[in-house]
Amino acid sequence: MHSEQRQRTRDLLRSRGVNRALFAHPHSITWLTGFAPGIQLGPNLFAGGPPLVWCEDGHFTLILMEGMIDVSGGLADEPDCEIVTYPGYTYQGPIDGPAGLRAALQNVTGRPTGSGPLGVELNSLPLALGIMLRQAGWEAMQAIDGWLGVLRMVKTPEELTKLRANFALTDIGHAAARRAVQPGQREIDIWTEIHSAVERAAGHRVPLGNDCVVGSRQTNIGGWPEDRILEEHDAIIIDLSTVDLGYWSDSCATYYATSPTPAQQRAHQTVLDALDAAIAMVRPGVRACDIDRATREMIISTGYPDYPHHTGHGVGVSGHEAPRITPYNEQALEPGMVIMLEPGIYLPGEFGVRLEDALLVTTDGATSLTSHEKRYLPSL
Amino acid sequence: MHSEQRQRTRDLLRSRGVNRALFAHPHSITWLTGFAPGIQLGPNLFAGGPPLVWCEDGHFTLILMEGMIDVSGGLADEPDCEIVTYPGYTYQGPIDGPAGLRAALQNVTGRPTGSGPLGVELNSLPLALGIMLRQAGWEAMQAIDGWLGVLRMVKTPEELTKLRANFALTDIGHAAARRAVQPGQREIDIWTEIHSAVERAAGHRVPLGNDCVVGSRQTNIGGWPEDRILEEHDAIIIDLSTVDLGYWSDSCATYYATSPTPAQQRAHQTVLDALDAAIAMVRPGVRACDIDRATREMIISTGYPDYPHHTGHGVGVSGHEAPRITPYNEQALEPGMVIMLEPGIYLPGEFGVRLEDALLVTTDGATSLTSHEKRYLPSL
Repeated sequence: MHSEQRQRTRDLLRSRGVNRALFAHPHSITWLTGFAPGIQLGPNLFAGGPPLVWCEDGHFTLILMEGMIDVSGGLADEPDCEIVTYPGYTYQGPIDGPAGLRAALQNVTGRPTGSGPLGVELNSLPLALGIMLRQAGWEAMQAIDGWLGVLRMVKTPEELTKLRANFALTDIGHAAARRAVQPGQREIDIWTEIHSAVERAAGHRVPLGNDCVVGSRQTNIGGWPEDRILEEHDAIIIDLSTVDLGYWSDSCATYYATSPTPAQQRAHQTVLDALDAAIAMVRPGVRACDIDRATREMIISTGYPDYPHHTGHGVGVSGHEAPRITPYNEQALEPGMVIMLEPGIYLPGEFGVRLEDALLVTTDGATSLTSHEKRYLPSL
Repeated sequence: MHSEQRQRTRDLLRSRGVNRALFAHPHSITWLTGFAPGIQLGPNLFAGGPPLVWCEDGHFTLILMEGMIDVSGGLADEPDCEIVTYPGYTYQGPIDGPAGLRAALQNVTGRPTGSGPLGVELNSLPLALGIMLRQAGWEAMQAIDGWLGVLRMVKTPEELTKLRANFALTDIGHAAARRAVQPGQREIDIWTEIHSAVERAAGHRVPLGNDCVVGSRQTNIGGWPEDRILEEHDAIIIDLSTVDLGYWSDSCATYYATSPTPAQQRAHQTVLDALDAAIAMVRPGVRACDIDRATREMIISTGYPDYPHHTGHGVGVSGHEAPRITPYNEQALEPGMVIMLEPGIYLPGEFGVRLEDALLVTTDGATSLTSHEKRYLPSL
């Protein structure tokens, strides 16, 4: 499980002269091991800190609290990887997760040997553990935050399987959304229909993002559902991500409480044309900034305001990762990247339209990973 | 908002000679300020780290990313408190949350003045920020992890309002559970009915824990819902927490797919008797360990196995906090504490029963904060 990710990491660390590294960002942990704890209730109440991965001379050790809920199915028994746990819940004495984590990390890392700096994700490792490492003799620390971000851009076949499973769930969510969008329903009513459909299809709990906003909201770009009621002719932007097996999907469509007005139809068609044009550009070698500029200009050239967000972004263990499809990003697309494209038109206080697709970059073009009805426009 | 919490903190820090303190644990942040970001999708993808609270000479500064979703309604404009934000999402250049957070913290903390150590929640502050503080001249750091835990035990009237709002939501969840528990339904089907009822009642998204397990599961103490189907005569343990306004509720009841068997009836009545006896003990001055021992002995004396968990625990900004109702805890109860009591009987592979109530300790006894039907036993 995730052995290709660890091989890429080994190669990167070796090329930069780092023989020992400590990863602490949740996205790094999931990407390196496949381990994906449940996130719906925030951090585990008994854990002493985030799960950690220690890499020493190419061997990986995952350190986590015993009994942590692993919604990914767990890390298989891989030859290059092992799992070390520390005590979690007990009722026979005080719970001290931080002490358990500290002791486990100290035991795994030992005292410094060999040469070269210790690579550390400094933005994610708790200070208490940094102090412990220093006291154990690890003096030279090298920040490695963000190093894995570049390696994460091209997905492995195993990751594509997990991503496809999530995109299938958001497709189910959109089908439920289409049924639920009716005048008189509240945003939150529609949301619970979507979430229920997703979790019933999955057979277990699945975190769900992102937006469910009636278009007449003043800030109609995004936001969580509230008790706002859909009126006739309201547009509603429904942007869904699921997070299952440690991987995110993403998807956006715009629905109409009854039939769209002529103004909504025109805006919807314009966004659809821009999305189609963006999709047609996706192939290896094309720069992210060029897709962004062309898509944005299609919207502006029809007289609508520019959308105040990216044209797209990568997706994987994070819902928003490299490559960003933005004005400044000169990154060229490569086969195996998975990118979201999501142009929009927002007329504050009136309505908003956003349509989004997921594209897997292939050797000569792109394949869509979604089948939700972003082209849905009732009266066309 | 939460001014009483900050006053208690001021008093504690002063009594321990700490004039400057940096809080980084999410529970500390919510308790000190009322600020409660959404947690359902894990940490904010663009934030540079956890929200922080800096306390200097009794004045508090909340440091967080601009635009963070605040489900608590936000920190009011209090005279002893201010909010500092750092840049979050942008599409016109790279996003660097950690740099923004670091700069904001550096700006707020400045260079060391006066005397005495800097108090720091070392288990929660990212190492990168500790390094920055050290480089800025803050040499002596004093670990203050857990200091607020003791202060959090007695709830303020404001906190009781937030807790009551959450207990009302779990009551609604249990009413939905009772309707949904039918032979042929899966655990996940029942769960989505519960979660939908809670969110529709709240009018917005609400994180939901904890357990939804058919009693015939081998580990039938707890766990998230799966696609396991309820058969006739199955018992199902449904343990619900909501997390709204930054505060947790908790509640457990046991339901039966059809009518309970005689063995289930006897176990259910035994747990109910133990719970009632535990509730009757709750008053100021009673030690937690004495409630635990008496409750446990009531179960054991009827020939059932001891339950392998606490008898109860406090609840507040965390779902499990002091005072723990456990064998070792000699803490005496005080008016204003809110504790959960939840004895159980578990017969692995057969069925489990757990019943839970929430008690506010009053000056001469206790008041229940829940009204869900934990006494529900269809055939009695």
